[in-house]
Order: sequence, then structure tokens, then C-alpha cells
Amino acid sequence: MLYFVNDYSEGAHPKVLEHIFETNMESLGAYGDDKYSKSAKEKIKAVCGRDDAEVVFLTGGTQSNQVVIDSFLKPYEGVIAAKTGHISLHEAGAIEYTGHKVIELDGDNGKLKACAVEKWLSDFYLDENHEHMTPAGLVYISHPTEYGTLYSKEELTSLSKVCRENGLVLYMDGARLGYGLMSPDSDITLTDVADLCDVFYIGGTKVGALCGEAIVFTHGNKPRHFLTIVKQHGALVAKGRIIGVQFDALFTDNLYFSIAKNAVEQAEKLRNVFKEKGYTFFIQNRTNQIFIVLENNKMEELKKLVAFSFWEKYDETHTVVRFATSWATTDEKVNELIEIL
Amino acid sequence: MLYFVNDYSEGAHPKVLEHIFETNMESLGAYGDDKYSKSAKEKIKAVCGRDDAEVVFLTGGTQSNQVVIDSFLKPYEGVIAAKTGHISLHEAGAIEYTGHKVIELDGDNGKLKACAVEKWLSDFYLDENHEHMTPAGLVYISHPTEYGTLYSKEELTSLSKVCRENGLVLYMDGARLGYGLMSPDSDITLTDVADLCDVFYIGGTKVGALCGEAIVFTHGNKPRHFLTIVKQHGALVAKGRIIGVQFDALFTDNLYFSIAKNAVEQAEKLRNVFKEKGYTFFIQNRTNQIFIVLENNKMEELKKLVAFSFWEKYDETHTVVRFATSWATTDEKVNELIEIL
Amino acid sequence: MLYFVNDYSEGAHPKVLEHIFETNMESLGAYGDDKYSKSAKEKIKAVCGRDDAEVVFLTGGTQSNQVVIDSFLKPYEGVIAAKTGHISLHEAGAIEYTGHKVIELDGDNGKLKACAVEKWLSDFYLDENHEHMTPAGLVYISHPTEYGTLYSKEELTSLSKVCRENGLVLYMDGARLGYGLMSPDSDITLTDVADLCDVFYIGGTKVGALCGEAIVFTHGNKPRHFLTIVKQHGALVAKGRIIGVQFDALFTDNLYFSIAKNAVEQAEKLRNVFKEKGYTFFIQNRTNQIFIVLENNKMEELKKLVAFSFWEKYDETHTVVRFATSWATTDEKVNELIEIL
Amino acid sequence: MLYFVNDYSEGAHPKVLEHIFETNMESLGAYGDDKYSKSAKEKIKAVCGRDDAEVVFLTGGTQSNQVVIDSFLKPYEGVIAAKTGHISLHEAGAIEYTGHKVIELDGDNGKLKACAVEKWLSDFYLDENHEHMTPAGLVYISHPTEYGTLYSKEELTSLSKVCRENGLVLYMDGARLGYGLMSPDSDITLTDVADLCDVFYIGGTKVGALCGEAIVFTHGNKPRHFLTIVKQHGALVAKGRIIGVQFDALFTDNLYFSIAKNAVEQAEKLRNVFKEKGYTFFIQNRTNQIFIVLENNKMEELKKLVAFSFWEKYDETHTVVRFATSWATTDEKVNELIEIL
Repeated sequence: MLYFVNDYSEGAHPKVLEHIFETNMESLGAYGDDKYSKSAKEKIKAVCGRDDAEVVFLTGGTQSNQVVIDSFLKPYEGVIAAKTGHISLHEAGAIEYTGHKVIELDGDNGKLKACAVEKWLSDFYLDENHEHMTPAGLVYISHPTEYGTLYSKEELTSLSKVCRENGLVLYMDGARLGYGLMSPDSDITLTDVADLCDVFYIGGTKVGALCGEAIVFTHGNKPRHFLTIVKQHGALVAKGRIIGVQFDALFTDNLYFSIAKNAVEQAEKLRNVFKEKGYTFFIQNRTNQIFIVLENNKMEELKKLVAFSFWEKYDETHTVVRFATSWATTDEKVNELIEIL
Repeated sequence: MLYFVNDYSEGAHPKVLEHIFETNMESLGAYGDDKYSKSAKEKIKAVCGRDDAEVVFLTGGTQSNQVVIDSFLKPYEGVIAAKTGHISLHEAGAIEYTGHKVIELDGDNGKLKACAVEKWLSDFYLDENHEHMTPAGLVYISHPTEYGTLYSKEELTSLSKVCRENGLVLYMDGARLGYGLMSPDSDITLTDVADLCDVFYIGGTKVGALCGEAIVFTHGNKPRHFLTIVKQHGALVAKGRIIGVQFDALFTDNLYFSIAKNAVEQAEKLRNVFKEKGYTFFIQNRTNQIFIVLENNKMEELKKLVAFSFWEKYDETHTVVRFATSWATTDEKVNELIEIL
Repeated sequence: MLYFVNDYSEGAHPKVLEHIFETNMESLGAYGDDKYSKSAKEKIKAVCGRDDAEVVFLTGGTQSNQVVIDSFLKPYEGVIAAKTGHISLHEAGAIEYTGHKVIELDGDNGKLKACAVEKWLSDFYLDENHEHMTPAGLVYISHPTEYGTLYSKEELTSLSKVCRENGLVLYMDGARLGYGLMSPDSDITLTDVADLCDVFYIGGTKVGALCGEAIVFTHGNKPRHFLTIVKQHGALVAKGRIIGVQFDALFTDNLYFSIAKNAVEQAEKLRNVFKEKGYTFFIQNRTNQIFIVLENNKMEELKKLVAFSFWEKYDETHTVVRFATSWATTDEKVNELIEIL
Repeated sequence: MLYFVNDYSEGAHPKVLEHIFETNMESLGAYGDDKYSKSAKEKIKAVCGRDDAEVVFLTGGTQSNQVVIDSFLKPYEGVIAAKTGHISLHEAGAIEYTGHKVIELDGDNGKLKACAVEKWLSDFYLDENHEHMTPAGLVYISHPTEYGTLYSKEELTSLSKVCRENGLVLYMDGARLGYGLMSPDSDITLTDVADLCDVFYIGGTKVGALCGEAIVFTHGNKPRHFLTIVKQHGALVAKGRIIGVQFDALFTDNLYFSIAKNAVEQAEKLRNVFKEKGYTFFIQNRTNQIFIVLENNKMEELKKLVAFSFWEKYDETHTVVRFATSWATTDEKVNELIEIL
């Protein structure tokens, strides 16, 4: 069956696997203290253009969000996020589990706007009872968002400015960062991300790795005793090498970006066909996810031939579905799907 | 200065204080194991009309909300509340601190509607990824709400029905319960509350006590080891008698209801004057709180003579303010304020 | 029945109650922002001899321990305490509930020795894996201890030194502080406590108040946003005055110390009789608690005439029991007990 | 350099890696819903001899301990463990982070004895104040222990009996389970473990996998909504296949047991040489860890040729060190070390 359900349905990119294979029997230090992890960190710092950055590898996205947000917030602080943000909706309350409120603001196609943050701050401090309320300590954004949309450089700069003026940490969930940076719509580079955010992660799980995310503290701001914090959250991997080795491969010869580009290009091909055929787009975006409104009968029919994912109910007779491409999506698969459409 | 800031600016009703005084030197059991606490519990059970009810006294409202909600929810469950609910906004994240998400739904003048809960449930279970989301375990309402509005018996019955059909606990925050039950608009009695809710508290702090709330588990559903849970939350008072004695007085000769009635009647007098004088009401209600939209200059002028409380900014030139009456509000004070108006 | 069960079986000292009574109908600011709370704070600062101290009132002991310890520790830090410490054993895991490990060290008759803390620190940092372990951030002691024993000035100075040299906060649980300071064995004054500890609380619940403890941050070190933290823990009392007013009375005309002295003197009388009669003391101390080893039959007999408390099983035929005096213990009661013995 | 530091210094066993390789490009369901995870679960159930067992894969040991313990305990319950247990000492307070006390009992060479648990229970319920204390809900043991020692079948049966009689969950941390089961000293089989424990995990990270532990709920007792709980703890891996595939290989043709046997046999060879050469053993055991007391000068000298790990200071002039073998330890390496000794 054709598989467009998500961008984590295959294993690792062959070159990533190969690097695991070739380093497998070396005896290495544990908990990330190995030469491949170190090499990967240096490569990531270089591509971010920041000598003062610090990189830590964790296993998955929700885990990274939980550990990073909890490590930056004071225990009584909350995190501002869009209502549609991954931490707001789809992480089973992992942030609240660590004691912090997710302060959910209305977004704009998945994006959190600087003006929304500003308004919240202004309302908060206007309230004479704000000492009885949860102050914000960090702003969470995802890029691309859960809807595959992108922040423009201007939007990200505005958010960064609001955060810096108000003492808020700006954190970017980059689970699909590669697919965002390679979009034809993107006017942001990785160095922009590193300059404008205080901390972000470069997603590996969805972009060519078996598992693993690279958290980047952009300016010497890694929380003290971070290893202890990671351990306390149950997130420390004994064989830290397995993530280090993968990122070492991903950041060799631009692999991360070139495989991300493939996903975006395959999505563009599909998007054009959907457009030509007159399908209704639920949302406009040019990353690796395509959101289509399907008539329910049509959806059931299509389901027999292609695996895609349910997004949400649109109305009584229509449903929003998602087709995702990835680093692993081949021309053949895309052509087959085009045929079917 | 005239004081209409809130309903907790004086100490205790004289009869409550007298009971503390007359029992003061008796040597009594600790942690609520004393005859006055027992007597108060029996009186409350009687007035609730439920033999199978269990009563526990805690010190304050946020504490009661935190302990009750945390004790009913499984660790991965959240609590549904109106966006304007006290736990959503004004308890400094006390619920999230115990690990639980507050699932905030749009309300209707402070009230959570049964249909909103139903829609949320239906959307939740329709989502194929709901195992990655926070399921609800309890519904929180306040009565009167933070806006002084009241649930009708029909509305409360609908909420109760939705909760029971879906295995959700229905919990009522009754910080100002007396002021609600004594409203001319109320068609709900305390026995209705006890029948329709699974757990609620009868507020003492705002209705005649120095401190203390009476949590009522309505049908033998007090969580096991509740004393241990209370202790674990730092909420167990060594001299439990101090709350028991107060509620013993409050539920003797209908004191709780008669002093609550005073507050509501004084508010009605004021409300009528505001109406006559053409003031703009921010919200319609007939409990002990009056919300008025004041022109900012007018507000500054009034501030010199009367203490009231800021509620929220209305627009550039107007502000919403609150005048609260209480069990302690006298005819003289009200007449003085009427004079000023 | 004669009541020597504990030191919290009566209400408040008459002068404390009187002050509640005389201030009862004044309209005052909420949440501790009232003139009596302010006055009490100034009196406490004066008696501590520290202008830079800050005082906050909370309701009970476990609550104070939980809020203070959690507010000082970083989320990954633990608190060092004696194995027999109140937070180690008798607070239902209230500290762990806030995420922190209680690092339990062997004590000496209830006391934590400086050398034990030093040894733990040295072992900890010697361990190459200490980043995988819980570092300590605070040292908890109680004075008097749970066994009624006292730190000498020398012992407290040593502990203070170890803490300051190692960046640890020294916190004293003073639930019975008055009974300690008034002991004939004490060579410590309240100003010593304020000089040597970073934070401590002066217990009200067990020394003449209905409820309430006065937390003293000794040198301008109250954690930022402490009111928000208190609210988040469910520990903020709306009518903060009720604790402020009580401490205002307790720290007028030395009341706190003179009523504490009564308890200690009554205990001395009893202790002498126990000694004369040849009873076995479980532990030597000269505060308001007396620990006696009773033969089980004797215990059962005595129980019919006097209420005292079970402490622990001594052996198959003996039990350790506790007789406690308090501010409320009268000559008559003590003489009656002496008669019985 | 010769590497005997630990049992997680190499990658995965070649057959494990091969299985990752050969399944890599298959499009599979996420979050453990894939055919290899299912196959691995069936194989594990078979080897455990229990049809009613349920298997869940997590990434690491601390994570497994945290998620399992937290999912079984009620929020106010604690876990009993030996003082030397991994969760007591070396998991950075991960259990306390989830709100639970670790009740640390003295062990016997790393083992928790049934009689120690019984005594604690009896003391606890004898204490009249036990409602103010933390009740136990689960007993944690590791097998082999942190000292490489093993429970006999009799000891495990006794522990199981005490737990079942007292409503406690018995949980075994099997980080090195293979090395225990293959010890010549072991009289326990995997089916014994599955019969006597309520839940345990089969460690993969230290026995041939890149990462991953297989949690076995032995009798249909997997907590409800476990996937949500795992997600809430940040422990859900998107590509669940990566652990499933590895365990599928490990439980094919007895691979798990045969590679564990290698480690134990290599350790036996080393142990014999240490014995012959008159080295002092810190502890007697026959699993894959050897604990030796070395004179400090000798240790420094040896360090230049072999990597081993610091265990603890023995006295001023001696240190306890650990030599660990693993599935990856070859005859050559062992012979080289023997040469050096």
C-alpha cells in the first residue's frame, strides 16, 4: 500500500544507518561523552554559525519539549503557545505534568503572532491580581507549525524582539525544521533561527534518523546541571552515541538539508496535482505536509489505495486529511499516488 | 473609607467568633477529630439531605480546589473548566502544579454549558490521536461564577447528566455558595447541589468565617486515604477544630443562609440605585457582586470616597469595576454609598 | 480526663483571641496586606534583631516546610534531613510531592550533625557519577527536634558554617521554637537563630495560636514572586489578617516567650517527679516533651486516667510514650498528674 | 586501550543491527504499532511462559523505572527499595520527581530481604500516626543487583509472598537480567521471574541492543491508558519499531541468552585469575561485574593500561573498582587483561 501517513514511517536514511554500522563495535564513552557526539555537536554549531552554542541530544520531540521547557521555567512560570501547538494539544499534558501551565493563545494558521504575545503580557500586567496568576517565562513556537506553515523572517524577528524585551525565552520546536528551511517559501536560514531563538531543536526523528533531536542552546545559555536534569526526567540515554552518530552523518555533506529538500519537492509535485484536479486545500503551505478537504465517500474510496492520515472533521460530509512526504518518499511512490488521483 | 472591595475584608460573624471563644480552652482531638467538627459535619449532611455524604474541612478555596481535583483525577487526566474559571485564571497555576491540565472551554457569562462539554468530548474521541491527548476526568464549575452569575436547575441538571453519562466527576466550587443560593434568581437548593454534583464545597471564608471551606463528597465517594492526601498537600491543619467550630456555628439556626441573604439584599438595594442613576452594568446578575462600567475620570473621583475593585479594562476610556457586599455589609454603609452615587 | 497528648489540643491563648476579637469588624486588606500583619512583622524583625529580615505568615508546619523548601531548591535538588526529621517521616511525603528527594542522614538523638553533612558532601563529590545523583540544596533541621532535644550554639554554628561554605541553605523548622528557646538547657537566642540560619519559622500553632507560623527570611533572601509561589501551593489565606493579628498579640509584651516558658517549667516539674519515681527516660531533654518507657500493663492502666501519646514500640513488653505540656498547661493539671504517678 | 568500564560501551550485537538494516525501508505503523514490535512481544510472552503477559518497549532503564513505578503507585504512595538500589541513588531523583518517596531500607549485599519489607510494614501500621506517613505501594528490586548479586528462588518467592499478602506490586529492574539468568549461581528462570513478579523489564541496552527495555506486565495488569502515560512522561518513541525490531532479533534463536552467557563466562575467567593472583574481592558474585579492592598506587598503574570504573572509596589507601564484561567482550580482550594482571 502507498504510505503517506506521516514522515516517520521508515527507519533511517541509508547513510545514517551506515554510520551506525561502521562505528558499532568501537568502545566509546557513555551518556554522550563520545567522539561522534562531539563531532556532531561541532558540525551543528558550525552550520548554526555560533561558537557559543551548546548542543545536547535527546531521543524524541515531546521529551525535548518537556525537558527544555521545564529546565528554563521557574516552577511557578508558564509557557505561552498557540492553541494548536503540539505542547497544547498532542503531548498528553507532558508540560503540565512537570507543573507548568500552557498559556494557550489564538494562533494564525498555527502561528503565534508577536502582537498576541504582547497583548497577553499587557493584559497580564494590567491586572491588579497578576500575582495570583501564572506569569509566562517562555514562548513556544513550532517551525514549521503543526499545519505546515512557516514564520517569515519578519515574524520571527518580531517574536524574538517581544521576548527579549520582556525577559521571555524563545524556544522553537523544530521537529520538521529541515522541511521548513528547504521550503521555497522560507526566507529563514538556520543561522537566523540560531540568532533569533534562545533555544531550539533540530528534529532528527522526522528527518532521516531512527530517533533523536539536537537541542541547540544558542548563546551559552544551557541550564546548569543539565545532564542531571535530563537524567531526572528519565531522558538520559546510556549509549548516547546512537544519537550522536546519526547527527554526525546527517550533518556531513549537507545530508540533512538535501534529504529534507527531497520531501519538500515531492510534496510540491503532489500539491500541484491536487491543485490541477481541483481539490480543496484546508490550508496553504509549501512544506512536506498537504492538508486536503475530502468528501467523506471519496475519502473512504481513496483509503483503499493509499494510507494517509485523518486530521479533523470538516463538516458532516467532509473531512480534513493529511498527506505527508518525507526524506524517504520516492518518485515512484509519488507518481503512483498521482496516478490514483 | 467605605469598603466594597470584596467579601473577605472583615473577620468572622460575631456568632462564629463567640463559638470559637466559648470552646477555646477545651482539650480536643487534633486534625479534625473533635466533637465540634463532627457536629458541624452532621449539620451539613442534614441540610444537604444526604446521609451518605462525607464532609472534610480545609482552610481556603484554592487549596480545596487543588486537593479535591488532584485527589479525583488520575495522574494523566485533566479538568474541564470555563476559560474564566477561578482555576483557569486566578489560582497561580495551582492545578497544573499538581500535574493536571486545565482544559479551558469558552463559557457563557462565566458559566460552562453542558453542550460545550459534550462537544469537547465528541471532538476528543473523534480524534484518532486522542491517546496522545489529555483525557478529562472532572468538570469544574463555580456557583455563583466569578461573574456572580448562576446556573439554573436545568443547566446544572444537564451538566450533571453529561458528566454521569461520560464518567466525569462534577465538582462545584462554592466559594460564594450562600450568596448564590439566597439570590432571588436562584431555583437551586443545597439539596439540588448535593444531588447533582459529586463533590462541592460550601465556602466559609467569604460567608462569615475567619477561614475554612466545607468539602462535601455527596455519595460516599470520598477518595481513600483522603487525610493522607490532604497532609501530602500541606493542607492538614493541626487544630482542625478551628474550622469545625466555625461551621458548627454557621450551620446552627440557619446562620449561614441568613447572613448570606443580607449580602444579597444589600446588593439588590445598590443595584437598583445604579440602575436608576443610569450606570452601565457589565453583566446581569443578582448575587452579592455588582459589575459596573465606569468612565475612567468618574472612577478616579469615586475612588477617593469608596474602595471597590478593578475588574478589567473595558476600553481606552472605561473600566469595569466591582462592588461586593457581604455578610458584614450594614444598612449604614450601603446608604452612605447610595448617597455618594 | 487529663490531657497531655500534645501541645495543640487547646485553642489560642486568651490574649491572642482577644486581639482577634477586638479587630474583627475592621475592613482590612486581604492576603496579608493589612496593618496587623505589618505590625507583627515589624515586631518579629525587631526581636530577631535583623532589619533585613522578611516575614511571611503561613497556616501550618507541613505547609511551611513544603513551600519554603520547594521555593529554595532548584527542581533537581534535594534536601538533607535527619532520618527522624519531621519531613522525613511524618509529613506524608509532602516534600517528595513537590519533586524533591529528602536525603536522610543518621542523626544523633534527633539532631543532624555538621560532620554528617560534611561526610555526605565529601562522598557525593567523590563519586564520579554524582551528576547522576541528587545534589543537595538545603539542610533541614528542627529545633527542638522531634525528640525535644536542642542544638547547642556550637552545634548550630558548625552546621551554619558547613552550609555557607558549601552553598547550602540552612532552614530551621521551629514548630516548637519557643519551647526550645525557653529551655534551661538552651544557649541559643532568637538572634542567634536569625544570624545562623538562612530561613526558619517561628511556630504559632503549638505555641499559643489557633493556627499560623511566621516564616523568617533572615537576610533579604525571600524568593522572588513568593506570594505567587504560596498561591500556587494552595497556601495563600484570603484573610491573611487572622495569622497577622495572632502574631501581633504573641509578640506584644513578650507573650510568646512567657507562655512558652510556662510549658517548659511545667514539664520540668513533671520530669522531676518521673525521675524521683524511678521511671525510665527514653531520651534526655529539657523542653516541653517528656519521653518515658512504660511497661505495657502500666501503660494500659495509666491510659484510663491520663491521655498521652504513643511514640514507638520499645520491646515486646514496653512502649515509649510522650507527655507534652504547652502554653495551656496549668498547675492544677500537672499536680493532678503528679498525684496519679 | 582495553575497555572494561561498563556493559554499554559498544553499539548493538551484529544480528540486532542486521535486523534494523533489513527492515529499514519498510513503511510501518508508529508508536509501537508495527509487525516487528508485535512479533517481539509474542516471542517475549512465549519465553516468559505467560499468555496473559503484556509487553511494552521503552528506551532506557531510568525511564522504565520512572514510568512503571509512577503508573502503578497512587499519588500518595511510595516505593520500597534497598538503600543501594538504582532508584535510591543513581537516577537523579527521577522517582521523587514524579512525586513519590523512595522508602530506603537496608539491604544485604544489594538485595532487599522479605523480612526487611515485613518489618517496615509492621512498624508502619503499628505507628498510630501512619495516616501522616507515606504508605508503600510497590517494592522495587534489581536483579542482578547493583553489586552483581542474585536473588535465590527462595528469596524471590518470599518477597513475592510478602508483596501479595500486603497488596504491594513487586517490580524487578532487569537492566542486566540476562547476565543474572545465565549466572552459574542462578536458580531462577525467566518463567520464575514472570510468575513471581507483577512487572519487570528485560534490559536491552546492556545486553546487545542500541537502546531499549522490554517491560513485561505479567498478568494482564498493564495500567489503563498506558500509552497516554508513556507519552505524558515524554517517553513515547515515534519510531517504536527501532526497539521492537531489536528485541525481535534478541529473542530469535535464544540470542539474548547466548550473548548474556558470553559475558558471564568471560567474567568467570577473569574472576578466577583475580582469585589466583590474590586480589581482594569487595563482594562475591558470579554475574558480569567484578568488584575488586585495589591499593591506590596499583590502581593508578593499572589505569594506564585498562579502563575500568571507580566504584567507591574503600579506605585512605584503597579503592573499590569495577570490571564489567558484556555481550561484546572477546576472548582476546580478556586474555590481554589477564596478561596485564
